[in-house]
Amino acid sequence: MSTTPVSPSRAIDAELRERASRVIPGGMYGHLSTRRLGADYPQFMARGAGARAWDVDGREFIDLMCAFGPILLGHAHPEVDAVAAATSARGDVLSTPGPEMVELAELFTAEVEHADWAMFAKNGTDTNDLAVVVARAHTGRSKVLMAHDSYHGIGGWALPPESPGTTAEDHANTVFFTYNDLDSVEAAVAVAGEEQVAAIVCTPHRHHVFVDQLQADPEFASGVREICDRIGAMLVIDDVRCGARIDLRGGWAVHGVRPDLSAWSKSLANGYPLAALFGTEPLAEAASRITATGSFWYAAAPMAAALVTVRVLKETDGIAKMRASGTRLQQGLRAQADRHGFSVRVTGPPQMPLLLFDEDPDHRTVLAWARACARNGVYLHPVHNWFMSTAHDEAIIDEALERTDRAFAELESDAGGAAG
Amino acid sequence: MSTTPVSPSRAIDAELRERASRVIPGGMYGHLSTRRLGADYPQFMARGAGARAWDVDGREFIDLMCAFGPILLGHAHPEVDAVAAATSARGDVLSTPGPEMVELAELFTAEVEHADWAMFAKNGTDTNDLAVVVARAHTGRSKVLMAHDSYHGIGGWALPPESPGTTAEDHANTVFFTYNDLDSVEAAVAVAGEEQVAAIVCTPHRHHVFVDQLQADPEFASGVREICDRIGAMLVIDDVRCGARIDLRGGWAVHGVRPDLSAWSKSLANGYPLAALFGTEPLAEAASRITATGSFWYAAAPMAAALVTVRVLKETDGIAKMRASGTRLQQGLRAQADRHGFSVRVTGPPQMPLLLFDEDPDHRTVLAWARACARNGVYLHPVHNWFMSTAHDEAIIDEALERTDRAFAELESDAGGAAG
Repeated sequence: MSTTPVSPSRAIDAELRERASRVIPGGMYGHLSTRRLGADYPQFMARGAGARAWDVDGREFIDLMCAFGPILLGHAHPEVDAVAAATSARGDVLSTPGPEMVELAELFTAEVEHADWAMFAKNGTDTNDLAVVVARAHTGRSKVLMAHDSYHGIGGWALPPESPGTTAEDHANTVFFTYNDLDSVEAAVAVAGEEQVAAIVCTPHRHHVFVDQLQADPEFASGVREICDRIGAMLVIDDVRCGARIDLRGGWAVHGVRPDLSAWSKSLANGYPLAALFGTEPLAEAASRITATGSFWYAAAPMAAALVTVRVLKETDGIAKMRASGTRLQQGLRAQADRHGFSVRVTGPPQMPLLLFDEDPDHRTVLAWARACARNGVYLHPVHNWFMSTAHDEAIIDEALERTDRAFAELESDAGGAAG
Repeated sequence: MSTTPVSPSRAIDAELRERASRVIPGGMYGHLSTRRLGADYPQFMARGAGARAWDVDGREFIDLMCAFGPILLGHAHPEVDAVAAATSARGDVLSTPGPEMVELAELFTAEVEHADWAMFAKNGTDTNDLAVVVARAHTGRSKVLMAHDSYHGIGGWALPPESPGTTAEDHANTVFFTYNDLDSVEAAVAVAGEEQVAAIVCTPHRHHVFVDQLQADPEFASGVREICDRIGAMLVIDDVRCGARIDLRGGWAVHGVRPDLSAWSKSLANGYPLAALFGTEPLAEAASRITATGSFWYAAAPMAAALVTVRVLKETDGIAKMRASGTRLQQGLRAQADRHGFSVRVTGPPQMPLLLFDEDPDHRTVLAWARACARNGVYLHPVHNWFMSTAHDEAIIDEALERTDRAFAELESDAGGAAG
């Protein structure tokens, strides 16, 4: 193992892990568990600022995960935090919504192409689930089609059938197709029954874990829309991971395809908890009939934060900035891999890059590289796409690339050592 | 109609309603929609402080709803808001959890009697749903028993079968019993099949909308526990509405009954979005296997807010204070009703009062009274229980009672007018 430039004590993280193991199932759960990533990854961070974050032991990282999406303008954005704090001091969770809710619904119905109305919630799961419920209420049908291995939250319908604690009934109405494969969508429609399909749910591009990201074929996007129109099903775009970071107009606006419903969350309020369901006018009536509510869904502070987040994103041309930074990162990584003799695939829209190694079926090599990145001060995930923020400027990307270059060098040296 | 002491212009609220009707389904959705409450109720509030709130037109209310539960120490509690803002400035949503998560899990496993471990989420629905999934993963069974008309969030299993957009499969594993009726629980077990029951879900007391609140019979509580033990099902307490406000040890600790799982949310962080699932040691393994995650579930600021909220609650003996204030309110309301010639039932634990009128099958009278309360500056719901906070001190309760007395007087005068 090579020497690492940053390796202070990890005593605080270790102590917190030990304490967590006694009071949190498995020591940690969900997508922020670093159990499978190894000891080079901290389990607990204490601070973030811009494109950087520090773990509880003071190790500094360039954060390429952006909290797995929520951080769009950089950690601890002063203007967003200030408006959220001021709103909380005035009234965040009141016995009614605040005026911010109307302003935000107006903003998004203006920005998001297909959106005639908006509902707000807290989790991406909330709005994916609500989309399905609205589609079912509108069509009077039950079946939902989604891509194999796609992630649409933790609602029973969206989880793999083998997911512990889910029932046969949870999965009874879900039929799978293959992303970008229209024939497989037609086959799924046939399995479900044409007149039983309430919705086809699709991410803007394929961003499943473990595999290359894949842009949607324009013919696939328009073809799914046509199938929905033909059979009377609703097209739902799951824009939870992409929305605002890739395209504020909605995921398939670039293809000229308008969904009936779209689910958004993550980056809407630069970390403040917010999710949104957008829909077209014909679905407003069904949306008004379903049971949809939550104790914190109307909170004003995250909505005020979202108003600022979207304004700053637009004023600073943030999406173009992220695209440029992400492109610089992707090109740099490809060049580094080449220089160090590794064959890699860098995929995804530049704002959401992912690097995987060729001939790495069990992802052992990418994990070793990701660990070396962590040791060298770059926080990224081995098999889940990363996220750019507008704080990831040219200088940060260049600094990150210096660190990833050291990670490639360590991997090369380890590989040489293993071979020798 | 009597003159009202507070009735400035409602122009801003009216304008916001009009705008909302164009971009939000039905103008507003969920439990904060005031559509059915009439024009005396504002749809939009702008500010809260302690036990008071102000609508967008500047009308002041004594707020007896506390945002339907989340506000436990009063609106805009300076100490809670300060720690939340400081945590956000340092790092709220990072690419890992913060140390607050461990501290909070340790705090709750110390305070909540049955809790050996904790998981955190955002909505009460999240943790009620997770409780059911953990119970299913642990038992390998599917059926869930719950009380008729009880509210356990918007998961398909928990909604009434007629709820729009839900499917037959959503409801296939839910069997209903009658609260406080052990025979009905036995009957539900028989319908489900003894060896099919994964969980029996119950609120600490009956707090369904539209009906009197009802304490759990101690024999009911211990009887449900015995049935669970006999058939190998998990007992889940839905403490989302009651937890921390009624008993920090958990809902049935007062009866000496320990559940296997309990779901909490609402008041944990004085308005900051947080939900918690607590469980006993034997269920930790199942809890670590299920798919449970959300973009904002690990956010540090709401956890920091919860740490302060619980500390302040304990240091100030907040539960006893709320009980005393609620008792003063309940007694005052009974005396007023009597004085004005109305026959009412004031029910519920003092921290969560509800007033309903006798001979009011369609709730027309209670709605008229609630509207009069709103006109007179008391914000309460006609058929959903109210919530005390520790900011509701003796002086506030006395001021609220002056206002409710005027509401009774208006109702009496209207009734006299109608009769005359």
